[in-house]
Amino acid sequence: MAEHPLDPIFHPRAIALVGVPRDQRSRSYQFFLRGLLDLGYPEHHAIYPVNPNATAIAGFTAYPTLLDTPDPVDHVISLVPAVHTPELVEQAITKGVRSIHFYTSGFEETGDADRAALEQQVIARARSAGIRVFGPNCMGLYLPGEGVSFSPNFPRESGDAFVLSQSGGNAMEIVAPLARRGFRYSKVISFGNGRDVGAADLLEYAAVDDESRIVLAYLEGVPDGPALFRALKACAAVKPTIILKGGMSAAGARAAQSHTASLAGAAELFAALCRQSGAALVDTMEELHDLAIAVSTAAREIRGHRAVLLGGGGGFSVLSTDAIARCGLDLPEFDAATQDALRAHVPVAGNSVRNPIDAGFMGDDLEAAMSEITRIAVTAPGADFTFAMISGPVRDDFATDQPTADDLRRSEERAIAQVRRLAALQQETGRPIIGVLRGYTPGTAPVALLEAALHHGLATFESIPRAARALQLLLAWRASREGLPPIV
Amino acid sequence: MAEHPLDPIFHPRAIALVGVPRDQRSRSYQFFLRGLLDLGYPEHHAIYPVNPNATAIAGFTAYPTLLDTPDPVDHVISLVPAVHTPELVEQAITKGVRSIHFYTSGFEETGDADRAALEQQVIARARSAGIRVFGPNCMGLYLPGEGVSFSPNFPRESGDAFVLSQSGGNAMEIVAPLARRGFRYSKVISFGNGRDVGAADLLEYAAVDDESRIVLAYLEGVPDGPALFRALKACAAVKPTIILKGGMSAAGARAAQSHTASLAGAAELFAALCRQSGAALVDTMEELHDLAIAVSTAAREIRGHRAVLLGGGGGFSVLSTDAIARCGLDLPEFDAATQDALRAHVPVAGNSVRNPIDAGFMGDDLEAAMSEITRIAVTAPGADFTFAMISGPVRDDFATDQPTADDLRRSEERAIAQVRRLAALQQETGRPIIGVLRGYTPGTAPVALLEAALHHGLATFESIPRAARALQLLLAWRASREGLPPIV
Repeated sequence: MAEHPLDPIFHPRAIALVGVPRDQRSRSYQFFLRGLLDLGYPEHHAIYPVNPNATAIAGFTAYPTLLDTPDPVDHVISLVPAVHTPELVEQAITKGVRSIHFYTSGFEETGDADRAALEQQVIARARSAGIRVFGPNCMGLYLPGEGVSFSPNFPRESGDAFVLSQSGGNAMEIVAPLARRGFRYSKVISFGNGRDVGAADLLEYAAVDDESRIVLAYLEGVPDGPALFRALKACAAVKPTIILKGGMSAAGARAAQSHTASLAGAAELFAALCRQSGAALVDTMEELHDLAIAVSTAAREIRGHRAVLLGGGGGFSVLSTDAIARCGLDLPEFDAATQDALRAHVPVAGNSVRNPIDAGFMGDDLEAAMSEITRIAVTAPGADFTFAMISGPVRDDFATDQPTADDLRRSEERAIAQVRRLAALQQETGRPIIGVLRGYTPGTAPVALLEAALHHGLATFESIPRAARALQLLLAWRASREGLPPIV
Repeated sequence: MAEHPLDPIFHPRAIALVGVPRDQRSRSYQFFLRGLLDLGYPEHHAIYPVNPNATAIAGFTAYPTLLDTPDPVDHVISLVPAVHTPELVEQAITKGVRSIHFYTSGFEETGDADRAALEQQVIARARSAGIRVFGPNCMGLYLPGEGVSFSPNFPRESGDAFVLSQSGGNAMEIVAPLARRGFRYSKVISFGNGRDVGAADLLEYAAVDDESRIVLAYLEGVPDGPALFRALKACAAVKPTIILKGGMSAAGARAAQSHTASLAGAAELFAALCRQSGAALVDTMEELHDLAIAVSTAAREIRGHRAVLLGGGGGFSVLSTDAIARCGLDLPEFDAATQDALRAHVPVAGNSVRNPIDAGFMGDDLEAAMSEITRIAVTAPGADFTFAMISGPVRDDFATDQPTADDLRRSEERAIAQVRRLAALQQETGRPIIGVLRGYTPGTAPVALLEAALHHGLATFESIPRAARALQLLLAWRASREGLPPIV
């Protein structure tokens, strides 16, 4: 791509941490200094801790002020109180830094007029000198390709997901759970009050960033509606763009104002803006995760509402069917030929072959029969896609109270083999399959299993209700993109 | 209470397991024989395995037929195929048993006319001889006081929750997750097709059963609307009665027919029936769990929609506020006096005191300050109740990738102490508090913590959205009981 003005900012070769504490137990030390250390930043770049009360921090020479650092500094992480920020900006200008990230909070979001004026003054001064500002009141940058991070626990490897978030906590709630499910990131930007670099800049950048395939956003405010709309349009036209918007309720809007001084605007207007730009608007963090999985797998090919449920357990099938129907999906009854074909493999007693398929009571040849049953279900005439179960270790464990490490390893291998078989069948038949985890406590399925599923293009969810909701969102998003060029 | 006709049935002194396999790996062995063994049934009562191909099973003498058992038998668990059930019923009549539980399936639920006729014939013959039948196509009885169980993993201790379920799987999905959260049971009946003992009988029994304080039901069919309505009215008038109904959608109704041969009936009619009887109708299994917790704690006293959110983390607070608002609850802004009182304990930078309270950035004296902040929040004028966080081990753990056993023990003790403090404050102020778990993967909070919360009357939920939905259901249920005598 042509070089975007933000591009050098996202490749900082030297970072100063101004106000970083010596105390390793402090949060800001852990977030920022340990974040850089654990992600390997010092292996290729320079770190300058700035702290007037220390001579060395974490083995690096510490400097009394930013001006005392020996070499050029590209990026400053500011951990100083708001009152010291004007002085820091002057030093940054003298030093010739390109960008400042203000972890510092205590500005306009407090509702205090003097603090709002201070914020304005600081940002204006930095901008006038050509310095770009992230924040204030945010976690800043996670750039795994550069070894930059605001948490020591984020993956070291890069990926193709671009994240922008006004909340640092919610940035983490996007990054970590989706990382468990196989996601990796190109750039993650927590931008807080967003007084300089904001959502519009970042979406515009994401649209042209070759490293980013999918864009995930948590937004609170809409400071400039037309600019945001233009950027959202540019981005959503070429990349799946999923937005979680805080402050959609009146009370939530007040909370957003206290959090990032954001004026949330009318919920209906924001929803229309997403619809018209072709972005997907979700209601909850879980929906953001699940829709991100759906658009990153073969589920993205699903064109219609007709589902097959290859369940297990009668009561589970009944409640699952209701949950699927609540999300506007159909479970049409199989035609006679399909029912006959299934009946050849499914005993009559305790089972059903009409759709949902309840094939819980199979005797000992379960595995062999399931492979045939699955093929018949997945290729059933008139079905757009199939929900199929991926079995965890809990359900059949009568042998001991706690499964042994060996039991868990075997069940993990079995589940991964199931994922591979389903993915191969999906590939071969061209019929999308939705994997649903069973027998795992939510959030505890093995990472290797989830990574294998994503790697093989098999959308996998924690429960039928979450899977059905993800499909509902996917289909609504697809409908809203009618007329736009296809991107997935 | 006056002796109800079902009462002797729920106190069987001798059980025959007809058709029980020798193979300990078989599901039916594990469910029923191991269920009885692990719950201690043989410590006080007699077990007779019946299997023509064995002389002993699990150390008990096995008998070729029911008629060969040496002593009176009260209850028969039938694990024989449907085709053998007429003969079994004749033997049961000769033997003088009081009740038969047919695990056996393959009857009307298959959609086969001959099998439907067989079912009718078998049930009619048993009934004509005064034998009560559970099922067919069900898991039967869990009576912890008697040591009867259909799973080896259910708690041995009794409690005061009565459960009726047409699905064995869903009975387990009620019993086990709520047991983790501190529930214990008086009687649990999985009754499948319900061709003799049905929902109306069981609700009528539950209404007068002194051992049962709360009633939880999973239903699929409504074979006799007026009878069910009468029983539901009798039960819901005197005990919290929570119903999860499978087959509310058209496709779900078809699935219910395949599962338990149930005619599900119109969803609107069923909802009206619940509303008019004062029972609470829920949409999902999670809602059933959560509402059961709400009505079993001080949350049951909540009379209004005005909530306080004592959160943590700005983005989390914003999304939580939206989720709370989506459930029809208010988060009114605090009056000036309350904000001033909070401000004395909450630093300005990075926090908010308007409601929600975002007090994430507190420095080192967090614990001390939180106690004051919590008291101010909980007693704020104009609030009906407060959502307060109970912190798990995950969030602040930068020290190691995996917390040690010691870390987990300490964090568990800390969380239990938090629960005790919140419960004491709730008790002292008469203002209900809703505990929300943070930092635990859903489903993994320590049992000791959840049990302590229930024991101390503190409603505790896995997330803000689930807590808010539980409160919404509670308030709707309370409104629908307007005019009925108070029961909680």
